[in-house]
Amino acid sequence: MMKMKVGVVGASGYAGGELLRLLAGHPECEVACITSRKFAGKSAAEVHPNLRDILKIKFEDLAPEKVASKCDFVFTATPHGASMSTIPVFVDSGIKAVDLSGDFRFKNVKTYERYYGLKHSCPEIKAVFGLPELHRKEIKKARLVANPGCYAACVILGLAPVIKEDLTEVVAVDAKSGISGAGAEPSQKTHYPLTAESVLPYSVAAHRHLPEIEQELQVLNKKINISFVPHLVPVIRGISATMHCFLRRGINGERIATLYEKFYKNEPFVRILNAGEMPRMSAVRGSNYIDIGCFEVDEERKRAIIVAALDNLVKGAAGQAVQNMNIMRGFEETAGLKHAALYP
Amino acid sequence: MMKMKVGVVGASGYAGGELLRLLAGHPECEVACITSRKFAGKSAAEVHPNLRDILKIKFEDLAPEKVASKCDFVFTATPHGASMSTIPVFVDSGIKAVDLSGDFRFKNVKTYERYYGLKHSCPEIKAVFGLPELHRKEIKKARLVANPGCYAACVILGLAPVIKEDLTEVVAVDAKSGISGAGAEPSQKTHYPLTAESVLPYSVAAHRHLPEIEQELQVLNKKINISFVPHLVPVIRGISATMHCFLRRGINGERIATLYEKFYKNEPFVRILNAGEMPRMSAVRGSNYIDIGCFEVDEERKRAIIVAALDNLVKGAAGQAVQNMNIMRGFEETAGLKHAALYP
Amino acid sequence: MMKMKVGVVGASGYAGGELLRLLAGHPECEVACITSRKFAGKSAAEVHPNLRDILKIKFEDLAPEKVASKCDFVFTATPHGASMSTIPVFVDSGIKAVDLSGDFRFKNVKTYERYYGLKHSCPEIKAVFGLPELHRKEIKKARLVANPGCYAACVILGLAPVIKEDLTEVVAVDAKSGISGAGAEPSQKTHYPLTAESVLPYSVAAHRHLPEIEQELQVLNKKINISFVPHLVPVIRGISATMHCFLRRGINGERIATLYEKFYKNEPFVRILNAGEMPRMSAVRGSNYIDIGCFEVDEERKRAIIVAALDNLVKGAAGQAVQNMNIMRGFEETAGLKHAALYP
Amino acid sequence: MMKMKVGVVGASGYAGGELLRLLAGHPECEVACITSRKFAGKSAAEVHPNLRDILKIKFEDLAPEKVASKCDFVFTATPHGASMSTIPVFVDSGIKAVDLSGDFRFKNVKTYERYYGLKHSCPEIKAVFGLPELHRKEIKKARLVANPGCYAACVILGLAPVIKEDLTEVVAVDAKSGISGAGAEPSQKTHYPLTAESVLPYSVAAHRHLPEIEQELQVLNKKINISFVPHLVPVIRGISATMHCFLRRGINGERIATLYEKFYKNEPFVRILNAGEMPRMSAVRGSNYIDIGCFEVDEERKRAIIVAALDNLVKGAAGQAVQNMNIMRGFEETAGLKHAALYP
Repeated sequence: MMKMKVGVVGASGYAGGELLRLLAGHPECEVACITSRKFAGKSAAEVHPNLRDILKIKFEDLAPEKVASKCDFVFTATPHGASMSTIPVFVDSGIKAVDLSGDFRFKNVKTYERYYGLKHSCPEIKAVFGLPELHRKEIKKARLVANPGCYAACVILGLAPVIKEDLTEVVAVDAKSGISGAGAEPSQKTHYPLTAESVLPYSVAAHRHLPEIEQELQVLNKKINISFVPHLVPVIRGISATMHCFLRRGINGERIATLYEKFYKNEPFVRILNAGEMPRMSAVRGSNYIDIGCFEVDEERKRAIIVAALDNLVKGAAGQAVQNMNIMRGFEETAGLKHAALYP
Repeated sequence: MMKMKVGVVGASGYAGGELLRLLAGHPECEVACITSRKFAGKSAAEVHPNLRDILKIKFEDLAPEKVASKCDFVFTATPHGASMSTIPVFVDSGIKAVDLSGDFRFKNVKTYERYYGLKHSCPEIKAVFGLPELHRKEIKKARLVANPGCYAACVILGLAPVIKEDLTEVVAVDAKSGISGAGAEPSQKTHYPLTAESVLPYSVAAHRHLPEIEQELQVLNKKINISFVPHLVPVIRGISATMHCFLRRGINGERIATLYEKFYKNEPFVRILNAGEMPRMSAVRGSNYIDIGCFEVDEERKRAIIVAALDNLVKGAAGQAVQNMNIMRGFEETAGLKHAALYP
Repeated sequence: MMKMKVGVVGASGYAGGELLRLLAGHPECEVACITSRKFAGKSAAEVHPNLRDILKIKFEDLAPEKVASKCDFVFTATPHGASMSTIPVFVDSGIKAVDLSGDFRFKNVKTYERYYGLKHSCPEIKAVFGLPELHRKEIKKARLVANPGCYAACVILGLAPVIKEDLTEVVAVDAKSGISGAGAEPSQKTHYPLTAESVLPYSVAAHRHLPEIEQELQVLNKKINISFVPHLVPVIRGISATMHCFLRRGINGERIATLYEKFYKNEPFVRILNAGEMPRMSAVRGSNYIDIGCFEVDEERKRAIIVAALDNLVKGAAGQAVQNMNIMRGFEETAGLKHAALYP
Repeated sequence: MMKMKVGVVGASGYAGGELLRLLAGHPECEVACITSRKFAGKSAAEVHPNLRDILKIKFEDLAPEKVASKCDFVFTATPHGASMSTIPVFVDSGIKAVDLSGDFRFKNVKTYERYYGLKHSCPEIKAVFGLPELHRKEIKKARLVANPGCYAACVILGLAPVIKEDLTEVVAVDAKSGISGAGAEPSQKTHYPLTAESVLPYSVAAHRHLPEIEQELQVLNKKINISFVPHLVPVIRGISATMHCFLRRGINGERIATLYEKFYKNEPFVRILNAGEMPRMSAVRGSNYIDIGCFEVDEERKRAIIVAALDNLVKGAAGQAVQNMNIMRGFEETAGLKHAALYP
């Protein structure tokens, strides 16, 4: 059987490396081309040592036209700003693509320009927001999918059912991310002596993933007011979000759990936990699952707590992207993504 | 100069050990007696190896009457439930005491009995709630001080100024604690392979420190609605609380910062951070300071974020207890507590 | 295609859980039966939450005869001492088995009895030591394979080439293991506040894996003198061993590297690193690879350093066991074991 | 009482910050001047947030002559190479100094030049090697003390008694350091996702602290052969060294323990542990103690294991430097250094 040739633009970062790990084990794909300006000439294994003996390919410093000529499908895992200049080439060449940056996530380009501080160079190119649980049909037909931000994926999936049911309009989302979310480049924010034994809130006023969350959830309820604060915690991978929902009316925890089970009934990668179980980063580490649970209601204080956990590099980035590719290309949606998390 | 003889009942746990560390360096005290049923006969250093060569005393299994006869001042660092049976002895003997458990923190004994699931055996004994920043005058005259819970100390101090100013009635408090908060006894909750690389929300419906927080803050505003969720994070010591305040009216961050500076102007252990600085566990680790800062306002979404950090074993337990003792005995309030945190 | 029915005796621990994770993705096997006295009646996912939706089976409290009647192949992941009483049943029933405990690793039963402090109840049952790199032919024909200890696998593979080449007789092996090596049961040794920010040497005088190492390496050189000290480091998974080899004669690093490349030329799970690369736990985390490298020689001081790293739960336990099963049953040796490590 | 005016040259790094923490609590000193090119104009607390409200002074970009004019005593905590150019100024001005870099540690300047790859610009300036346990008398009279390297302090003190007693000539030293040892500047070596859940051997062929160790121990036995490998472990502070001593003759553990107790009998900061106790980073964290213990002998394999632990920033750097200053100035040797470690 001929495998589909896949290119990964910007494959030297953590999301890029995770794409390579997943694609190396994908039954329908073959990694045909990986690009990196900085590491051109190096082998995949020199940059991602877990790939030694598994993926034998070298980084190239290639123009997007060259990538297009070598591949049937492309992932762009470059920083925001960079995708704007390569994606038009793939769109013009008729190459389907998933972009992992923030460049194409917003329906309203003004929102993008405000939160990213950049002028968008191709606002006419439209992408589908790549959350299959909300947009599977559009993804199936899409030529370009904008993969959600890691926090956004966690929070949108974590809140959609209660927002849709109109149980709450005021929600405080307190999210904690592993340090790999800050990327492969060393900085004060990732320096071990400062990150270990520590919890660091950041981008408090308005993190870039908040408008993504609002865009997707306001479709369900225009009036929601979300306070979102991300934190760096001393963990390599994983996002855990605690969502404090101030309730508009009385409801008990089981009812909420039932709502979630219905909402996500046929979803292959959303697991709704039982009462008494708590979503854990270790139960999703390295896997494409998002676990949602807790569903505890404090009736006296009229609030419900919902907790969601996923791996920021998998369901929060590369795994989500592969799931989108599977849908776009008509592969089995779970192809290459069935493995269990590393626990403990 | 004669030093005051101090006893520590229940000195084998982490709060007890921290009391010994601080008292060993206190200029006015001498540790005269330490008790533990389990470790009676062992030296302090066998249980707390940091005290080798520093504190030469043995654990005894002593009745409270015996402790009273040997000491001028007592700390009880036993679990809740146990303090109820020893504190009356100290009160009767005229020995001033600080209790570190939850047994005497509540004005309304019903609240205690509901949240701790125990009948209180001496509801007639009244203690002063040991937060000097709110109750210094009463502490000065108190015979018995109930030391606040670690989370409670952090959240009450973190919120008092905005609540007093009536800026908010709806607050979501997301608190993260180091694992030492779970005590010295191994359990699934403290098992390294499950706690490392993880964030665990717990006691979500209503943690025992929530009614403490409400008791103290409702004095300032009866109608506040607080959602409080504690988490275990992979850190040994430290609490960091992110407080999402949904605002009643427009205000900017500098104004909030100014409120805090005024409120805590003469406090020796409350540090208000400048704009752009974030409270860090590492800046308070091992010290009696609480750092409060962030003060970022999202005007569009009408909410302010306030962040506070302290060391759960110091300002959240033993250091706070020593500060209370200093006030009760007329020592310099900062005696034995002036050292800087370990950073990094 | 009919899949082989596999049983896992003692499947609630970390090695057992890892077997389930690997077997759930194995193309030739089906997990037919998992036993645990403590968790009988619970689902696999209640104990190992990473298996939710992936492996739907319940723990049973079954006699070995019952396991034998339900399975074509058995793994025993019970503690040493327990395997002695179940393995004879499988041997008698003609069921091939891999035992993950220390019970059948020793050619000389006296060595076992001395280091494990137990009388062996069936010394007549002989097993093959399950390191395919040294004993593949015997494993192919074996009815019972004794899976190596996690440290032993790492050190034997790490030293075999230099010992065989007679380059050294005096070696100090300093090994560091993640805390999962201490098992799923909480204890002082696994208590987060004591294990984090710490390195703990243990079993210093003579760890149980040392006689395994000696048994296998003395075949290559009778006179070797090995000092072996294991340490717990604040890591969930992974073993890294630094082997200080005092050299008998001059040799340079490249020569040593070449020896290793030859020795392990056709091995699917041994990766020899290039000069300048260092084996890392993160490059093998969750995978069945052992990485060996460093090969630096200090000519002035006549010693060479060799470093090896593997995942204690995979190549050090469950992955090794599956590799042994693959060989014993004639499956492709790498079946179910091809995935890359989680990096970072 | 007039306090001595102290200057810290290069006070923005971790050793510099630790000096400020210790000097801020020192009864005889006052920090008069702190220098940093990069942070000139910033306050101490902006760089070291633990010092807020504790040390109110600003960084200056000062020539050494200016520092000399403002201070009675100087610490140089600049990188090696830089101290060579400032120390002569202090020597000429008659200002006593402790240098924390490697520039003045070697009796033979050739050794320095070989291991540091630099030409020494003032080989005529001689310093005393600042280990009071070996050189207290010389330190008392010294004008310039070269503070030992962090690993060197740990290993020299850990081995001196067995080497002096001629029990061993072949020793493998496997040392593990917290990441703060790599300094305050972010790099791949300190990047959280690569350092957490990891153990990294480095400078394997010959770390710069090895010739220091040899210089000091060869005085006791010319023929010793030491293999030294340092590792980075996921810990902020602390060094733990496991010393595998291949024995020349039979001896038991108690005898070795007794040797150590005698050797260090009157030392205020060396603690010899009892049988069954293991030196722990957490028992010395933040304190100036070095704990030495283990002393287990494997008679069959003729080797003894000795373990030592200290805090790399205190007894391994700033605390040691203050101890040296105390001796040089005739203060009580333990002044400002009596506090207990943070445990846990």
